[in-house]
Amino acid sequence: MFYFIIDILGTIAFAISGVLVAMDKKLDLFGVFIIAFVTAVGGGTLRDVLLGDTPVVWMREWVYIFTIITTVVLSILLRKQLKYIRTSLFLFDTIGIGLYTLVGVEKGVEAGLLPIICVALGTITACFGGVIRDLLCNEIPVIFRREVYATACILGGFSYFLFIKFPIQTTYVHVISILVVIVIRLLAVKFKIALPNIYKAKV
Amino acid sequence: MFYFIIDILGTIAFAISGVLVAMDKKLDLFGVFIIAFVTAVGGGTLRDVLLGDTPVVWMREWVYIFTIITTVVLSILLRKQLKYIRTSLFLFDTIGIGLYTLVGVEKGVEAGLLPIICVALGTITACFGGVIRDLLCNEIPVIFRREVYATACILGGFSYFLFIKFPIQTTYVHVISILVVIVIRLLAVKFKIALPNIYKAKV
Amino acid sequence: MFYFIIDILGTIAFAISGVLVAMDKKLDLFGVFIIAFVTAVGGGTLRDVLLGDTPVVWMREWVYIFTIITTVVLSILLRKQLKYIRTSLFLFDTIGIGLYTLVGVEKGVEAGLLPIICVALGTITACFGGVIRDLLCNEIPVIFRREVYATACILGGFSYFLFIKFPIQTTYVHVISILVVIVIRLLAVKFKIALPNIYKAKV
Repeated sequence: MFYFIIDILGTIAFAISGVLVAMDKKLDLFGVFIIAFVTAVGGGTLRDVLLGDTPVVWMREWVYIFTIITTVVLSILLRKQLKYIRTSLFLFDTIGIGLYTLVGVEKGVEAGLLPIICVALGTITACFGGVIRDLLCNEIPVIFRREVYATACILGGFSYFLFIKFPIQTTYVHVISILVVIVIRLLAVKFKIALPNIYKAKV
Repeated sequence: MFYFIIDILGTIAFAISGVLVAMDKKLDLFGVFIIAFVTAVGGGTLRDVLLGDTPVVWMREWVYIFTIITTVVLSILLRKQLKYIRTSLFLFDTIGIGLYTLVGVEKGVEAGLLPIICVALGTITACFGGVIRDLLCNEIPVIFRREVYATACILGGFSYFLFIKFPIQTTYVHVISILVVIVIRLLAVKFKIALPNIYKAKV
Repeated sequence: MFYFIIDILGTIAFAISGVLVAMDKKLDLFGVFIIAFVTAVGGGTLRDVLLGDTPVVWMREWVYIFTIITTVVLSILLRKQLKYIRTSLFLFDTIGIGLYTLVGVEKGVEAGLLPIICVALGTITACFGGVIRDLLCNEIPVIFRREVYATACILGGFSYFLFIKFPIQTTYVHVISILVVIVIRLLAVKFKIALPNIYKAKV
C-alpha cells in the first residue's frame, strides 16, 4: 500500500513534468496527453519490452492510464497554479525515481540477471520516460547533459546489491536503496554537484 | 478479402506519405525506403512489440514488404505525377487509419485487455507510423500539433465498444467503427475543426 | 573464438564511434556512455525486440556491457590519441558491420523467416545502432543520407542466400557474406561510389 501510493505520486509528478514540456512546445491537447503518458510510463515500458515481459505494465494495470488522464486534465485546467507547487513536484519526482529504480532492479533480480544489468534496468525505469519525452519534443535528452539524475539511480541500484549482502530484512534494503537515490539527488541539486567535466582540456 | 484490399491500399497510402516527407528532407534511396517502411508498418510494429506478439506482423506476412518496395519504386519514378493523385491519397490514407484503428482495437480485445487500452492500441496502430517517421526526420510529430487524426481514431475506437453492446452482427460493428473514423476525419478537414486551443489564455 | 574476437572488435569500434559523436555534442559522462552503449548494441537490441527474443542479447551476455564501459573510459582518457587510430577504427567498424549483418541474417534463418526479412534483420543489426545514436543526438540519421553502409549490408545479406545454394560448407558461406559487405564498403569509400541521386531532375 505504501509502495502503491509512492508509485502513484511518482506517476503524477512525471506526468506533470511531461505536461510542462509539451505546453512549452505548444503541442495540442492530444500531444500534451501523449507526452505526459510517455514521460510517466515510458521507462517502465522500455524495461518490460527489453525483458520480454509483455503486455507491458500499463496495459495490465489500468490505474496508470486513469491517473495520467486525470493529471493531464487537472494540470491544464490549473496550469497557472502549477508554479506554486513546484517544490512539491520536485519532491514527488525525486521520490518517484527512487521507487522506479528499485522496481527496475527487482524485476532484473527476479529474471535472474547480473547485478550490473539490474542496475541498468533500474536506471532505465527511472530515467528513460524523460528520454523518450525529450526525443518526441525534438530535444537532446536533458539527462545526457545534466545528469545527477541518472547517477543517483545508478548509485542507488548498486547500494541495493551492497546492502542485500548484510544480515538485514529485504524491506530495509528496499528503503535504503530508495533513500540513497533521493539523498544523492537532493544533495546534488542543493550543492550544485555535477559529474567531472570531461571537456575542460579543450577550453 | 475486402479487409485485405483496404489494408493494402492503406499501406500504399502510408508508404507514399513517407516517400513525400523523406524526399522533402532530401534523403537518399535507402533513407526514402526506410521512412516509407516505418510510416507504413511502424504503428503495427509498436503495437505488436508492446503486446509481445512477436515476430512482428511484417516479418510474418511478406505482402507488406513487397507492397512497400513496389510503392517506393513507383513513387520515385512517377514523383512528378504524385501531385495529381493527392485527393485519392488523402482518401486511401483516411480509409487506412479507419481500418488500422479497428485492427488494433481487435488485437487488444483478443488479448483480453480493458476497452480504454484497446482504444490506445487502435490509435497506436493508426497513428504511430507517422510519429516514428517524423522522429526519424527530426521533426516534432505532426499529430501532436494538429491532431484531428488521432481524435478520429480515439472516437472510432470508443464507438466499437458502444456498438458491440447492441444486438447487431460483429461485422456491422466493424464497419461502423471504421466509418466513424473516416467521417470524423473528413468532416474535421472539410470544416477545419480542431481541438479546443489550450493556449488561448496566454495570447 | 574467431567470431567472438571480431564481435568484440566490432563492439569496440561502434562504441568509440558513439563516444566521438557524443563528445561532439558536448554530452556529459553519462550521456557519452549511453550513446556509446546504444551505438554498440542498439541494432542487435532492436532485432531481438522485433523477433521477440528477450531478454535482449546484452542482458544475457555480460561481455558487452563490460567491453563498452572499458572502451568509454579508455576513449575519454586517451581522447587526444583517438585520431591516430582513425584508420584502424574504420577497419574494425567495417569488419563489425560485416559480422553483425551475418549474425542478424542467421537469427532470421533460425526463426524460419523469408530471405528478404532475414536480410532486413541483418541490416537492422548492423546499421540501427547508428540510427538510434543519431536520433538521441537530434540528427537525421547519417545512413539515410549517405548510405553505402546499408547497401553493403543488404548485398552481403543477399549473397548469403545466393551462396547457401552452392555445394559448399556453411562456414565458407559465412565468410563470403562477411567479405561481400567489407569489400563493397571499402570500394565504395575508396571510389566515392554512392547510390544514384534521385533528386537530379530538380537541380
